[in-house]
Amino acid sequence: MRKTLAEIAELVAGTLEGDGSFVVTGAAGLQEAGPEDISFLGNPKYAASAQASNAGCLLLPAPGVSGAGVPPRPERESGLPAPGVCPPGRGAGAPGKAKNRIFVEDPQYAFSQVLWLIHDERPKPPPVIDSKACVHYQARLGPGVSVGPFAVVDRGSLVAEGAVIGAQCYVGENVRIGRYCLLHPRVVIREDCVIGDRVIVQPGAVIGGDGYGFSTDKKTGRHRKIPQIGNVVVGDDVEIGANAAIDRATTGSTVIGPGTKIDNLVQLGHNVKTGKDCLIVAQTGVSGSTTLGERVILAGQAGLVGHIKIGDGAIVTAKTGVMHDIPKGEVHFGIPSRPHREAMKLQALFGRLPDIHDAVKAIKKKLGLHEDHAKVREG
Amino acid sequence: MRKTLAEIAELVAGTLEGDGSFVVTGAAGLQEAGPEDISFLGNPKYAASAQASNAGCLLLPAPGVSGAGVPPRPERESGLPAPGVCPPGRGAGAPGKAKNRIFVEDPQYAFSQVLWLIHDERPKPPPVIDSKACVHYQARLGPGVSVGPFAVVDRGSLVAEGAVIGAQCYVGENVRIGRYCLLHPRVVIREDCVIGDRVIVQPGAVIGGDGYGFSTDKKTGRHRKIPQIGNVVVGDDVEIGANAAIDRATTGSTVIGPGTKIDNLVQLGHNVKTGKDCLIVAQTGVSGSTTLGERVILAGQAGLVGHIKIGDGAIVTAKTGVMHDIPKGEVHFGIPSRPHREAMKLQALFGRLPDIHDAVKAIKKKLGLHEDHAKVREG
Amino acid sequence: MRKTLAEIAELVAGTLEGDGSFVVTGAAGLQEAGPEDISFLGNPKYAASAQASNAGCLLLPAPGVSGAGVPPRPERESGLPAPGVCPPGRGAGAPGKAKNRIFVEDPQYAFSQVLWLIHDERPKPPPVIDSKACVHYQARLGPGVSVGPFAVVDRGSLVAEGAVIGAQCYVGENVRIGRYCLLHPRVVIREDCVIGDRVIVQPGAVIGGDGYGFSTDKKTGRHRKIPQIGNVVVGDDVEIGANAAIDRATTGSTVIGPGTKIDNLVQLGHNVKTGKDCLIVAQTGVSGSTTLGERVILAGQAGLVGHIKIGDGAIVTAKTGVMHDIPKGEVHFGIPSRPHREAMKLQALFGRLPDIHDAVKAIKKKLGLHEDHAKVREG
Repeated sequence: MRKTLAEIAELVAGTLEGDGSFVVTGAAGLQEAGPEDISFLGNPKYAASAQASNAGCLLLPAPGVSGAGVPPRPERESGLPAPGVCPPGRGAGAPGKAKNRIFVEDPQYAFSQVLWLIHDERPKPPPVIDSKACVHYQARLGPGVSVGPFAVVDRGSLVAEGAVIGAQCYVGENVRIGRYCLLHPRVVIREDCVIGDRVIVQPGAVIGGDGYGFSTDKKTGRHRKIPQIGNVVVGDDVEIGANAAIDRATTGSTVIGPGTKIDNLVQLGHNVKTGKDCLIVAQTGVSGSTTLGERVILAGQAGLVGHIKIGDGAIVTAKTGVMHDIPKGEVHFGIPSRPHREAMKLQALFGRLPDIHDAVKAIKKKLGLHEDHAKVREG
Repeated sequence: MRKTLAEIAELVAGTLEGDGSFVVTGAAGLQEAGPEDISFLGNPKYAASAQASNAGCLLLPAPGVSGAGVPPRPERESGLPAPGVCPPGRGAGAPGKAKNRIFVEDPQYAFSQVLWLIHDERPKPPPVIDSKACVHYQARLGPGVSVGPFAVVDRGSLVAEGAVIGAQCYVGENVRIGRYCLLHPRVVIREDCVIGDRVIVQPGAVIGGDGYGFSTDKKTGRHRKIPQIGNVVVGDDVEIGANAAIDRATTGSTVIGPGTKIDNLVQLGHNVKTGKDCLIVAQTGVSGSTTLGERVILAGQAGLVGHIKIGDGAIVTAKTGVMHDIPKGEVHFGIPSRPHREAMKLQALFGRLPDIHDAVKAIKKKLGLHEDHAKVREG
Repeated sequence: MRKTLAEIAELVAGTLEGDGSFVVTGAAGLQEAGPEDISFLGNPKYAASAQASNAGCLLLPAPGVSGAGVPPRPERESGLPAPGVCPPGRGAGAPGKAKNRIFVEDPQYAFSQVLWLIHDERPKPPPVIDSKACVHYQARLGPGVSVGPFAVVDRGSLVAEGAVIGAQCYVGENVRIGRYCLLHPRVVIREDCVIGDRVIVQPGAVIGGDGYGFSTDKKTGRHRKIPQIGNVVVGDDVEIGANAAIDRATTGSTVIGPGTKIDNLVQLGHNVKTGKDCLIVAQTGVSGSTTLGERVILAGQAGLVGHIKIGDGAIVTAKTGVMHDIPKGEVHFGIPSRPHREAMKLQALFGRLPDIHDAVKAIKKKLGLHEDHAKVREG
């Protein structure tokens, strides 16, 4: 990348303070950025890093935007450090070392726009069906499709315009891959699954493995497999992380709503349904037939039992174990999960158990109650 | 599928109420089923869904069977909803909308028998060693074996009659694959492992990776690899989930008992041994040398430390962390785990911490004990 | 293997008690070992197994070494079992059934030295670039490199001397693989990543998948992908487990310090940095930009939020959820995590909640406080 700050400011629809002819050639985090890099302040928490940054230009929140005014203008002459809190407004905002600043509504998004510039500069090979791929003669490939070496596209599958099937991918029978999908190397999509447009799948993900369905013979204790004859339907603009596993439905479909982003090593059971624009963070597991509304967030290593409903906009915090429905918009925490406010109060009291215990001892002493007495349970 | 209800009733050894000449062409869940589908009621909890189902036929529990009598006969003429609870017995059982019902001992199993009908109708390609597979000239393949494109079967391996090695699978040196195994695409089985008959492995599973064994040099803090020269022995009728990882033993064997079903993303460490017919649900981890008895259930995201023993029929609930042996038949919950009854009681009291805390405050006030006093710990 | 005990004693720099001409041909655990096997006692906890072992020779801790003196000398003539605890020192140490013993400083390490003997006896195929591999003409391979069937080594990559690229591996563009690396089958290393010398990667691991980075549009709720243009840098002597996922950085590098050992199904987010010689046990997840010092241990199924720092030598116990920095050398436990001592005290008091609850009830009764009263919260 070689872009002037004037060009960058235009790209991100921001207001430049500084030298519009200054050229940046890279993008980096606040601490790693050098004088030719652009960086950004996405969270006021890192204001000090922004001040100390050697970046050639900083993307900062515009006045009136949450987080604006940070980092504060340091007292350069005196060399005093800037105060930790500063009044909002551009006048108060200064980049510390950085002489060039671009004020935008959403600095993280502006930064990602710059990253796309750099990303798109990487030369892309022209679309090609690699001679070492194995494409069934009854599969159909749209215009501009790429298929990498050792990939398999099986009978009856359809890969739409501009999709990229990475090296060593497996696309089973009667699969549909939407337009401009990007399957990184070594993705498995088993038979009959349907993938929307612009879906990105990271390496190693498995879509359409059999759901975990067994019928246990009460007499013998043996678990007899229940065939999983359904499929997985993935909406447009979904992303699925590395080595994630999304099981096919027993009957019907496991459904991933459009715009939902699934992180690495996530497990979604058979007949799970997610609404659109959910975030499902790494190593989370959702058991069979559970339904997520729209914009639900499941933080890392969360676990949900089967056959429950999570309302629109609900948030399940990290490591939480959910055993019941969660209403729209609620935040839940704990194993088993409780509403966040309640769970936080219980955590605080849990931390005060030594005080409670000591108080009870002191009271018993004062009242002449013997230790033995207390140990006799009444309830 | 095109089957009359008379044929279905015979297949599942059930008693038909309704039209034996009625034809069903599919199978689906209670809510999704249409007039040409068969569905089932496996759990009395879903009786209302069964009543409202549009299924052409329902598989229902026979009288005297647990869950029988559900769904109840609605008052059709009056249009009143059926009561939530109804007396058992066929007389009381009615399918709601569904005019056709088949009463069986185990509706879920009966449903799975129908699913097998549908599953087996899918045309199967004749067995073939794909010309793009890489089978070592010193490997031996039994009659009717299939090997998919880009699969590797290495030197000295033996693949028994009727086994299917999916596309892109890796079968290392001196591996034995039993009869009628089904390895879905992209399974790895490393050298020297032994797989029983009729084992099913979902995509991405790794059997026989090195156990996590290191000897730490106390002087330098460096971790020196301990070679893992053992193998994995998988019993007959085992199923292993997508992207699961089962490590080879340091010496000897990691053993999966026959009939054990392992879900996606499960981790079994070196020298773990499971008894027969265990269920190990998604994302559970079992550390090295731990032993499970028969019919043990480890629910999702459970974790077990190494070198412990879990007795026959024990159940570890979801997200539980087990640090000690569990006797036969016990149910454990919590981190660290406790017997389920005790853990549930503690959970209930945990939820009452605000009451306990308030009571202590009220008592201290009444007794004239100062807050400060209570904070002096006595113990 | 065919080695005399004199040869073994020399190899492990130990002191032999017994027959130096005795030949062992294998190595096994205490319970599995037969008369021709060597075994070891690594943990005093297993002293009874050592006594009962049928091993032809035992590797035991030398006097003065922690754990020395175990197993105790049984009263052979009387047939009495040995006492559970015995005085330290070689005089007190006896192998039970085993007549031959080798005393060493670190029996586990000595055992692993023997395992290497056995491991290295397995015939190794000469290095070969398999004719079924796909090596780009602009990739460079050092002397003695092996590339397995259906592996891809893409444009601009460099594989250094003696490295083994297993079957079906994917090495993306501009990747550097260090000397004597061992990539087991089906490893993915995406573009631009850098792997040090002697790195071992188990099957199915994915290095360099996109980090989980999205910028959410507050108006529409849509999550817009942030390109991940950084890479992963893996230090020398690292090991990475089966189906683990290590994400590339947004900008800059995700860094795995030299000597760090990563277990199966571990998730490391974008821009995570680990120091040298860390141990990260199975199914642990570390969120983006979190930094580990040197020799940090993260036990199984631990989870760390993003943007925190874990000090040198800190230990996070199994299943723990860490939300804050951990100072050097501290041990933390719990969700959310607390220092181990505090967490253990709280766990003990948690287990005593029934006693506390009963005591409060008894006190209230004695004081004539009504149940209702206590339920009025004061705080």
